[in-house]
Amino acid sequence: MVMLMEELIHQEAVQEPGRRERRRAETQQRILTAALHLFTTNGYLETTVEQITEAADIGKGTFFNYFPTKDALMVSIFEQVGEQFAQLRASVPGTQDVRAALTEFAHHLLRMMVRAPKIVRSFFGLALTDPMIGERFQAVVMQARSTVVAMLEHGQKIGQVRTDIPAAVLGRTLQQCIFGTEILWGFTYGEDLHEWIDVTLEIYWKGARTA
Amino acid sequence: MVMLMEELIHQEAVQEPGRRERRRAETQQRILTAALHLFTTNGYLETTVEQITEAADIGKGTFFNYFPTKDALMVSIFEQVGEQFAQLRASVPGTQDVRAALTEFAHHLLRMMVRAPKIVRSFFGLALTDPMIGERFQAVVMQARSTVVAMLEHGQKIGQVRTDIPAAVLGRTLQQCIFGTEILWGFTYGEDLHEWIDVTLEIYWKGARTA
Repeated sequence: MVMLMEELIHQEAVQEPGRRERRRAETQQRILTAALHLFTTNGYLETTVEQITEAADIGKGTFFNYFPTKDALMVSIFEQVGEQFAQLRASVPGTQDVRAALTEFAHHLLRMMVRAPKIVRSFFGLALTDPMIGERFQAVVMQARSTVVAMLEHGQKIGQVRTDIPAAVLGRTLQQCIFGTEILWGFTYGEDLHEWIDVTLEIYWKGARTA
Repeated sequence: MVMLMEELIHQEAVQEPGRRERRRAETQQRILTAALHLFTTNGYLETTVEQITEAADIGKGTFFNYFPTKDALMVSIFEQVGEQFAQLRASVPGTQDVRAALTEFAHHLLRMMVRAPKIVRSFFGLALTDPMIGERFQAVVMQARSTVVAMLEHGQKIGQVRTDIPAAVLGRTLQQCIFGTEILWGFTYGEDLHEWIDVTLEIYWKGARTA
């Protein structure tokens, strides 16, 4: 689950030509790839901004154009995800098709966040092995969970989601399936993650909908 | 997905009293916990057997009673899994209830392999961040996949599994859901993994069965 700040990039795109936008996205991508690789190889705390800029082959000033600190780099990743879920949460009461809303959201989040399999491996590797990052990851997972659960409860109320399993459990199961998809995809080279997600959600929804 | 060699332990149990058996299981568990923690903290290659025995608070001789080398420790984990899947594979042609067979197998594997959330985090963390372990992990995943796919193809033939999605894709999706369950469970403290698996498989099977 990693990560370009396309929201920012998109805002720029309004004012700027495509080339500069792409250049900025590429640099940010290079910083994140280098940083996550160093975090997982040498440890998050042990990695310095100097090492990141060296590995990414950019100047220190360039790094600070994107992130004020090393910590800000990780925090920004989690915050981006948090903001997306906050928007989804706001849309729950007006949602008429819960399956369509969650499917569209999953693809949107993947388009925004997930780039190379290697970065997915690094990101989950870091969340699983670094206690501090793991805690932040778990906090974002729980925030995302509460939003997904709210959407599924809404689905139960409007008769689209089965009610014999609590929404809290259905929401956790949906997260399990999505994370498992990303992680197994992280071991591939260039397969279509959106196809993987589509078929996973097709099976999940047949299992989670009202009979 | 980690890991006691209960097959071995079970063979001993025939000849030996329960206390010695438990002691042996505890020691092995201590070695694996210490080793996986060191692997993910300092790197697999960087970790020595001395560091493992020190962290596990056992003598070097005791370590070698369990594993001839550091490498053997990881290999033994993967081999145990591989053997279980080989047994499952042999049972495919005679299987009358595909859902029951795969569900029972999942619980059996978890009982045999998965102990503490912390070890699950370490194991997946290592597979995601260490290229050599990652390659072995991926090899075992693909071997397991081919067995699960063979079982699902059998299920398609005998009319229990939907045929509009290829068995290869259904099998991959099942792995995604199981891995995702283990990993999210890895962030909890003492929840019932078997319950998590049961509800995940309930949803998966409603999605994967013939209509």
